[in-house]
Amino acid sequence: MPPRRSRAQAVGHSLRAVLIGAPLRARELASEQITPVEGLSALSLDALTSVAYGPEAIIVILAAAGAGALDLVLPITIAIVGLLMILVFSYRQVIDAYPGGGGAYAVSRANLGHRASLVAAASLVVDYTLTVAVSIAAGVGALTSAFPSLSPATVPICIGILAAITLLNLRGLGASARAFLLPTMIFIFGLLAIIVVGLVHPLGAHTPLPGHSLLPTKDLQAVGVLLVLKAFSAGCSALTGVEAIANGVPLFKQPRAVRAKRTELLLGVTLGMLLLGLAALARQWHIGPRSGQTVLSQIMAMSVGRHWAYYLVSLTITVVLALAANTSFGGLPVLASLLARDNYLPHLFSLRDDRQVFATGIGALAVMSGALLVAVNGNTDKLIPLYAIGVFTGFTLSQTGLVVHWWRDRPARWWYRATINGVGAATTGLATVIFLVSKFTAGAWVVVVAVPLFILLFLRVHAYYEAARRSLGIGRVPPKPESRPILVVVPLAGISRSAQRALSEALSMSAHVIAVRVMVEQPEDERRAETDHELQEEWQRWAPGVPLHVLHTEFASVVHPIVAFIDDLQKGHQGEHIVVLVPVVVPDRLRYLFLHNHIDAVLGRALRGRPDIVVAKVPTLLASGGRGSRKHD
Amino acid sequence: MPPRRSRAQAVGHSLRAVLIGAPLRARELASEQITPVEGLSALSLDALTSVAYGPEAIIVILAAAGAGALDLVLPITIAIVGLLMILVFSYRQVIDAYPGGGGAYAVSRANLGHRASLVAAASLVVDYTLTVAVSIAAGVGALTSAFPSLSPATVPICIGILAAITLLNLRGLGASARAFLLPTMIFIFGLLAIIVVGLVHPLGAHTPLPGHSLLPTKDLQAVGVLLVLKAFSAGCSALTGVEAIANGVPLFKQPRAVRAKRTELLLGVTLGMLLLGLAALARQWHIGPRSGQTVLSQIMAMSVGRHWAYYLVSLTITVVLALAANTSFGGLPVLASLLARDNYLPHLFSLRDDRQVFATGIGALAVMSGALLVAVNGNTDKLIPLYAIGVFTGFTLSQTGLVVHWWRDRPARWWYRATINGVGAATTGLATVIFLVSKFTAGAWVVVVAVPLFILLFLRVHAYYEAARRSLGIGRVPPKPESRPILVVVPLAGISRSAQRALSEALSMSAHVIAVRVMVEQPEDERRAETDHELQEEWQRWAPGVPLHVLHTEFASVVHPIVAFIDDLQKGHQGEHIVVLVPVVVPDRLRYLFLHNHIDAVLGRALRGRPDIVVAKVPTLLASGGRGSRKHD
Repeated sequence: MPPRRSRAQAVGHSLRAVLIGAPLRARELASEQITPVEGLSALSLDALTSVAYGPEAIIVILAAAGAGALDLVLPITIAIVGLLMILVFSYRQVIDAYPGGGGAYAVSRANLGHRASLVAAASLVVDYTLTVAVSIAAGVGALTSAFPSLSPATVPICIGILAAITLLNLRGLGASARAFLLPTMIFIFGLLAIIVVGLVHPLGAHTPLPGHSLLPTKDLQAVGVLLVLKAFSAGCSALTGVEAIANGVPLFKQPRAVRAKRTELLLGVTLGMLLLGLAALARQWHIGPRSGQTVLSQIMAMSVGRHWAYYLVSLTITVVLALAANTSFGGLPVLASLLARDNYLPHLFSLRDDRQVFATGIGALAVMSGALLVAVNGNTDKLIPLYAIGVFTGFTLSQTGLVVHWWRDRPARWWYRATINGVGAATTGLATVIFLVSKFTAGAWVVVVAVPLFILLFLRVHAYYEAARRSLGIGRVPPKPESRPILVVVPLAGISRSAQRALSEALSMSAHVIAVRVMVEQPEDERRAETDHELQEEWQRWAPGVPLHVLHTEFASVVHPIVAFIDDLQKGHQGEHIVVLVPVVVPDRLRYLFLHNHIDAVLGRALRGRPDIVVAKVPTLLASGGRGSRKHD
Repeated sequence: MPPRRSRAQAVGHSLRAVLIGAPLRARELASEQITPVEGLSALSLDALTSVAYGPEAIIVILAAAGAGALDLVLPITIAIVGLLMILVFSYRQVIDAYPGGGGAYAVSRANLGHRASLVAAASLVVDYTLTVAVSIAAGVGALTSAFPSLSPATVPICIGILAAITLLNLRGLGASARAFLLPTMIFIFGLLAIIVVGLVHPLGAHTPLPGHSLLPTKDLQAVGVLLVLKAFSAGCSALTGVEAIANGVPLFKQPRAVRAKRTELLLGVTLGMLLLGLAALARQWHIGPRSGQTVLSQIMAMSVGRHWAYYLVSLTITVVLALAANTSFGGLPVLASLLARDNYLPHLFSLRDDRQVFATGIGALAVMSGALLVAVNGNTDKLIPLYAIGVFTGFTLSQTGLVVHWWRDRPARWWYRATINGVGAATTGLATVIFLVSKFTAGAWVVVVAVPLFILLFLRVHAYYEAARRSLGIGRVPPKPESRPILVVVPLAGISRSAQRALSEALSMSAHVIAVRVMVEQPEDERRAETDHELQEEWQRWAPGVPLHVLHTEFASVVHPIVAFIDDLQKGHQGEHIVVLVPVVVPDRLRYLFLHNHIDAVLGRALRGRPDIVVAKVPTLLASGGRGSRKHD
């Protein structure tokens, strides 16, 4: 007999089929084999697109000290590019050491112990969430810079893009690297062209820009060390994502490590050129913050004018930033599934959906980043102070882990390798401290609160699962199961086909069956004995071969007397299993359910957690059929 | 073993205990024995308080034709009081004929058949709902007339009063007639005193009133018949509730019928005097509609000035109107329970709550009247056109039913009695037609739509229950239950204490037990046979005496393979009961539930409606206990 579905279920199923798609076999989600150039689009978008907010973050901070401070953009960018180079060479080492994919969680778990790995995991969770929020906010910023009339709809557009990305990932289409290639190339070469034109011969340098300057009209102040550090910290948001290639080594074509290292270098060179070029142009044109215009939009407009090239690259930036947000959807659900497998998150996070994706992790990321976007009104500047701290904590931990790794394994030239990663660890560790100090009051404290909270959550979940393992005796061989006498209690509302079904089932399980019927007494009734007698007579006429107990109550609930009866029964029959079989009527349409009383649910709840009692419903299918019910639909 | 409760359940229970109270025995809800004067407060508040909106309803309609039309208030009121007298004498007859309580539904069901009784029931449901909404809106109107600064909060105050009444009724305290006595007496004697003072020697006739006149400043137009009929229809809202005493005869002290008839007469005289007195004063002072001031408030202020007496009576009016709304809460849930017992409403409506009240009916009335109050913004005038139609339909049907009753029974003087009820039926029937015609476009069409919809609902529910009865064979003696071989399937996730519990239970039920384990294959695994072998070896080490079937799937869902396995099993074992026992882990705290996978729920849903399969969970209680979980709470 095929499974039956109510119409409501069927509607739910087909809605799901349209939005999410039919179930997939594991092998249908073929892992792609990518080349270095494809690697740029599949794994490096987060890093590359940070040119859309990194330089801006520096300029916003410096502008607070007046127009003169903007001269510092170039030296600060040079320092950041220097840090980028250290990171690129460090991560080329990570690729050598962990060709199976070396996320900060896995590397620090292997080399630094589970405490450090939880710090890494919590930091990464925070930063994956921030990456989604920052990328979408910056992408919508590029869009509203090009089309200022869209500004009022910033938050709805952000949420719409987030919803689309979430849905694509629930369909299991989030990782199709090849589809990302074209926009990535337009983005890289478009921006490089804009930089070259701007440096050599700007076409539209006198184009009037929308919005008004937000530069304070005060004189140059003494520029303090703290301001420089703040600008540096903010600019380092451009470096998030350089670790992604090392995490994704298994995706590359053979020889994997070689191709991955080549991609890492390619990323470093491209990102460095873009950052330096934009900084040079910003300095050349004294670009400052402007209302409704991102820094990148101003530079682009100054270089090529607000013409087709400007609009094409602006739109491409929105698209690639959305795709960059998408890469976090590749990262966090996998991290969460690893944490769940290690018992640090609910096991739900490790279950694959019908589409073979980790739907719980995808949902959690969507909810967290959506909440963040709403909280900051889709404003990138408010997110930047929170950003990069988590990533740099992960950088520091995985570089440190690598130093320990080289020290333990001692391969050829281990000393040279340990030095590179040691320098990387020291630099990124220092950067993390600078971030925390310089951005603390501006929002970094949120991260300082959130990371320990996530760690606490991981530890609590872990402690629970450990206790559950002990309590369930998993890993040990339990005693053999043994058969015991069974006592079946069947609560009835009357004599009917459904009572007969339940009693048949009960008699099939055991010879010891008791039927129970509850009579609610109204104060007027003074014929309790009489009712009893009548019920027993009716029962005898049926003679189902099972005794009937009539329970009387003056209260309205029929559940309490049944529970009390079972309690008594249990005392009198120590060592027997008690099974309660509740006859339930299952209507053929879901909407008729509310016409039936759900004693099974109430009884199940009342007996929940009683270790020696099994409560089961015995369904009787009810065809309401015929006249009336079909016709009117 | 006492039932265990999670903390969340415990919090829910104690919140409920504070708001609703502990369960009551049926006899604890002692039926009160009331006297005629107490009967006025317990059963007649709906009728008496209609003086707060009845005269106003007339004046609002007449004012549309100019100030001169207001002279018609007195003659129209005299007509209404005439109708009142007919009703009072008719209902004294109903009391004689149905001393057990003769609601329109019961009377027309007994004498006119089930179709007429459903019309009566649907009309009453509509009007009980309207009574609640109109009374609360009018009560808040009295309050905001006295304290104009409260006007902006009209809807929240309405909903607050409704919530308080609902809660009292869920506690089972809705019917404490004696508590109503004092405000009822202050209300009646206060208003009588105001009328006498106003007629004889007004103290404050020159008090300036808040608000401004809403009288149109046009000349007297020809007053058409339709206008007079409209005003009459609107004023008849003052007659709703005169049937309540006849419904509540069993509440009276012996001799019940005599005392009830005395109460009915007392009500008629009191209500008549109040209506006539107020109409005379309205005419004397040319009272018209006024912004933010009810007509009653204007009359009271003119008579005694806006001093303590005015405020005392205003507040009392609010209180008694709230109590009048409360009387519907005594009526509709009982009516709904009768309908449910006759299979016209879901049986839930006939179940008493722990406090012995019909909680479902109370909840339904609260939701419907609350929605109505919000829809009209707490404005009484908008509700009046909908009002009274249902009650007068009920009047007509029960009077007609009584004529049939007398005709059938032919007691002494039956001819005289039939005449009284016949006149009542004819008059109220005529009034109903007048209402429908004159108020149709102003809102009465809503009732014309709602009543048939309710009747349709009743009939659909009835048809379903009839089909269910037939399908379940209720009333017929079903075949005897018979034992059949049982095949128990136990889906396992591994070897543990909970697996052992489930297998013990399974072996207790049947010697034929199959354990099932689902392996989800990832494309990388190419060692399917190997895994199989390992699992079977592990199983042999345990040797639970039950075969293990390993099911392989490339899809992510573990439920589908189990369902498919059961399908196959069923084909191979025709005539056997299949029982699926799912081991489930029950954590000791509700909030840990989300840490467990709910395969039982998914499996139950997938197998729902399969008539030969019983799905049961075998609970294993899990003490998370110890370190971490207790301390941090």
